[in-house]
Amino acid sequence: MKLLRYGPKGQEKPGLLDAEGRVRDLSGKTDDFAGAAISVDALARLRDVDPDSLPLVDEPGRIGSCLASVGNFFCIGLNYAKHAAETGATPPAEPILFSKATSSLSGPFDPVEIPRASEKTDWEVELGVVIGRETLYVSEADALDHVAGYCTINDVSERAFQAERGGQWIKGKSAPTFGPVGPYLVTADEVPDPQKLRLWLKLNGETVQDSDTSDMIFGVAQIVSYMSQFMKLMPGDVIATGTPSGVGLGMKPQRFLKPGDTMELEVEGLGVQKQEAVAAT
Amino acid sequence: MKLLRYGPKGQEKPGLLDAEGRVRDLSGKTDDFAGAAISVDALARLRDVDPDSLPLVDEPGRIGSCLASVGNFFCIGLNYAKHAAETGATPPAEPILFSKATSSLSGPFDPVEIPRASEKTDWEVELGVVIGRETLYVSEADALDHVAGYCTINDVSERAFQAERGGQWIKGKSAPTFGPVGPYLVTADEVPDPQKLRLWLKLNGETVQDSDTSDMIFGVAQIVSYMSQFMKLMPGDVIATGTPSGVGLGMKPQRFLKPGDTMELEVEGLGVQKQEAVAAT
Repeated sequence: MKLLRYGPKGQEKPGLLDAEGRVRDLSGKTDDFAGAAISVDALARLRDVDPDSLPLVDEPGRIGSCLASVGNFFCIGLNYAKHAAETGATPPAEPILFSKATSSLSGPFDPVEIPRASEKTDWEVELGVVIGRETLYVSEADALDHVAGYCTINDVSERAFQAERGGQWIKGKSAPTFGPVGPYLVTADEVPDPQKLRLWLKLNGETVQDSDTSDMIFGVAQIVSYMSQFMKLMPGDVIATGTPSGVGLGMKPQRFLKPGDTMELEVEGLGVQKQEAVAAT
Repeated sequence: MKLLRYGPKGQEKPGLLDAEGRVRDLSGKTDDFAGAAISVDALARLRDVDPDSLPLVDEPGRIGSCLASVGNFFCIGLNYAKHAAETGATPPAEPILFSKATSSLSGPFDPVEIPRASEKTDWEVELGVVIGRETLYVSEADALDHVAGYCTINDVSERAFQAERGGQWIKGKSAPTFGPVGPYLVTADEVPDPQKLRLWLKLNGETVQDSDTSDMIFGVAQIVSYMSQFMKLMPGDVIATGTPSGVGLGMKPQRFLKPGDTMELEVEGLGVQKQEAVAAT
């Protein structure tokens, strides 16, 4: 299934993209997409619903984040060797884990707000993994059974906040609108191999990131199993699995977002996002 | 008001400690304590309720975390000069920010589980700040108006996971039961000065931490204002504001939790916690 949320900001309804690419209203069949409503079990029940029985939405209007909220917005850092090199870092021996504030969650087509004091706001296309079961001490072999689905994420990052303001990366990852997620939550059954997905990002129409999840240093199963040794992942948690090379930080000269810039990005099969950068008010 | 949650794990009800120290049932007057239910405005409405009109709970039984869930579980690192010194770090020039997985939230008297591969599980008594309004670009002068209340927190930490496994601290802060919060959410009107609170922790009856929030490098108003330059804080977010010296990492020789150890800890006026360390199953 391709699940989505449509409607004005804060009033989105859960929906389903049908085989003809039309939006169907799922609000009579499910709570809004977050937590237990997107557990593996809840999605199995939704799969039994005949799409043709659902109300057709003629004019869905705005498409919001495919998740109404997230319990945790986790990220993996430097997970593509070429990206680690462009930031000047050596590839990590173990997954680097950090988080974004959950209030950074944003719609895939909503403007990205450049924070007031920002001079280094940057883009990062990433494969997003949505957890579907309580996950603690899980083996790599079983890890993918704990994934509800996948989505496109732009892990928007302020490089000075991230690296020049003392300590941990969360400071540069958390501003409002820094977490566009969607347009679709594509359920795991429709992604036979999460390590075979092309992903790309265009800045003002120019391709700046273009890679493949086969280049990830730590794959999805490794990441989920690894994280579960340190914490209990919960249904509705999301993990952004790292970005390939081509971010502004790695360019010579460096290049960062200005108001009016547009980002277009996609992870293969998970839907295209498009955002305009604007100044925060 | 001193707000709390009582009952078996997962079935807690919101309650109020009345002037005689008895528990009153608030479940008819409020949603469970999380998010909008503990906004400054929601708490103002609760303050209008006459405690004598609420059902008396003769046997409240277990006291759970005073928060049903948290949107974000933020922490400030190295925020007491003597603690920074004991870890070998220089005091930070700006607040160091990191987070715990939200699934680490735990009750103040529930056992603390030492993770399977852990050899360095440690204690940290901290003043907890619960946010009560959407908070973005807020001045220090206005910051305390955005605080719903305060609580005692044990920011349980696995030092090897935190510092020896690559990168960011979240890995050592996030295991299940690593975030005891409560017993009370004490509303901000009852804490005239959050920088004048003694805080202490006893390990097996021996005082190992004993300090005062006046020793914090960055005070609560500074922390809230500072964080709001980087992210939007939301009602129900919690911030653990750092621990004073006396953690096991700083002892010579170092000392870490073993099954059977007990921790007792308090921030003045916010209630005592007590946990036994047990091995994770």
